[in-house]
Amino acid sequence: MAGKLYGVGLGPGDPELMTLKAHRLISTARVVAYPALAGSDSFARAIAAAAIPEGAREIVMDVPMTVERGPAQAAYDAGAKRIAEALEAGEDVICLCEGDPFFYGSFMYLYARLADRFEVEVVPGVTSITACAGRAGLPLAARNERLTVLPGPLPEAELRDRIEGAESVVVMKVGRHLAKIRGVIDGLGLSDRAVYVERASLPGERICPLSEAPEKAPYFSMILLTKGADPWL
Amino acid sequence: MAGKLYGVGLGPGDPELMTLKAHRLISTARVVAYPALAGSDSFARAIAAAAIPEGAREIVMDVPMTVERGPAQAAYDAGAKRIAEALEAGEDVICLCEGDPFFYGSFMYLYARLADRFEVEVVPGVTSITACAGRAGLPLAARNERLTVLPGPLPEAELRDRIEGAESVVVMKVGRHLAKIRGVIDGLGLSDRAVYVERASLPGERICPLSEAPEKAPYFSMILLTKGADPWL
Ligand SMILES: C[S@@+](CC[C@H](N)C(=O)[O-])C[C@H]1O[C@@H](n2cnc3c(N)ncnc32)[C@H](O)[C@@H]1O
Ligand SMILES: C[S@@+](CC[C@H](N)C(=O)[O-])C[C@H]1O[C@@H](n2cnc3c(N)ncnc32)[C@H](O)[C@@H]1O
Repeated sequence: MAGKLYGVGLGPGDPELMTLKAHRLISTARVVAYPALAGSDSFARAIAAAAIPEGAREIVMDVPMTVERGPAQAAYDAGAKRIAEALEAGEDVICLCEGDPFFYGSFMYLYARLADRFEVEVVPGVTSITACAGRAGLPLAARNERLTVLPGPLPEAELRDRIEGAESVVVMKVGRHLAKIRGVIDGLGLSDRAVYVERASLPGERICPLSEAPEKAPYFSMILLTKGADPWL
Repeated sequence: MAGKLYGVGLGPGDPELMTLKAHRLISTARVVAYPALAGSDSFARAIAAAAIPEGAREIVMDVPMTVERGPAQAAYDAGAKRIAEALEAGEDVICLCEGDPFFYGSFMYLYARLADRFEVEVVPGVTSITACAGRAGLPLAARNERLTVLPGPLPEAELRDRIEGAESVVVMKVGRHLAKIRGVIDGLGLSDRAVYVERASLPGERICPLSEAPEKAPYFSMILLTKGADPWL
């Protein structure tokens, strides 16, 4: 009988923000799989490290960070193949995913490649957006408010249009797009309520008004544009 | 010294989807607080039940479900007052919140009332949107895609406008708004990719195409409009 694939969300970084279910699955795992951005350690593995049993086999997918999608697709093809071999041999595979697997997570690439042939269970995790909101003391949305999540790499004009018509906004994947995003938010006169959050729940966490954000933002950063707490009284 | 208030996310319903941190805080709590919709049991308390220690004191806030906001505000005023008394007496208070406290959660009403006077920590939780997406096998957003979260009580015309310009959409708080929402989605020709999810991760969970959704939706239901898994290959 084939094994089962689990896509396990690990939360935003603090290992204590993993779910009881994620912890149970990881600490009894015989095979774990995870992506690593080529050239750096795997963030997902680092979150789960203390729970991974000695002797568990690890399937590492080195994913190149290129703008073209071909090289990353090839990495997921190769990773899916190795995972499929383990599943076919009857082993369960625990795939480690930062945050939630289906929220801008790379697990969906494995899901698309394997879900038609194998049993797959997605174990949801705490996403970075609510983790950042909690750390910043900024409720994301209440009552009949709308929430819009935008990736920072979107073109400037599109970001402007989408932010202009929105209520609460989260801009993900800030990194090298910080200057562009800041320009858009300044241009819309919204800088007063824009908050920059870097490495939420992790050592080196940083939370400040967008106007005081560093020139260079790391990959693990986002911008929150909310109404603040007062309107919810 | 005053106690500390914790707003603790519990996830979408399955107690195993609570975080390790939530579990630790609840199982060592001396005072827990939670809202209960007037006349029914508290969903938050039900999720946490097995972890609440014998002898913990419980502060229950009976929140009336009215369209006017006055009665609910009065309930949160009264609840905040009782929580403040416990904090002033030096006790920590663990406030139980379904899903995530800052994602359409009632904890933000307590936060707005207490955060200026007391130390407050928000412990994020798994939201219903990623839990529903995981159960339905529908990735929410990938790469440079946008995600829009809309509350079902919004007026029909606004729902139509917002859904029309969107990519992935989540409609929360479906309940008695189901017929209206279905009309909007049908009118936009999007019913093919609309999925109805009720009570994700709980007994009685139900997942089906929107066209097969029951006439009457319960409060704990949502509609996902995503691209499905294929585009992520
Ligand atoms: C590829 S997405 C993965 C999102 C993840 N699956 C989730 O559920 O949050 C990576 C982006 O998530 C955000 N992010 C993830 N963890 C974060 C953290 N601890 N603090 C701030 N932003 C974070 C950043 O915007 C980063 O560019
Ligand atoms: C007041 S909001 C609370 C949201 C919660 N704080 C969260 O983070 O998911 C209530 C709405 O969440 C959604 N919801 C919560 N739990 C759910 C579940 N287990 N299954 C489906 N929908 C759920 C429904 O749309 C419901 O109307």
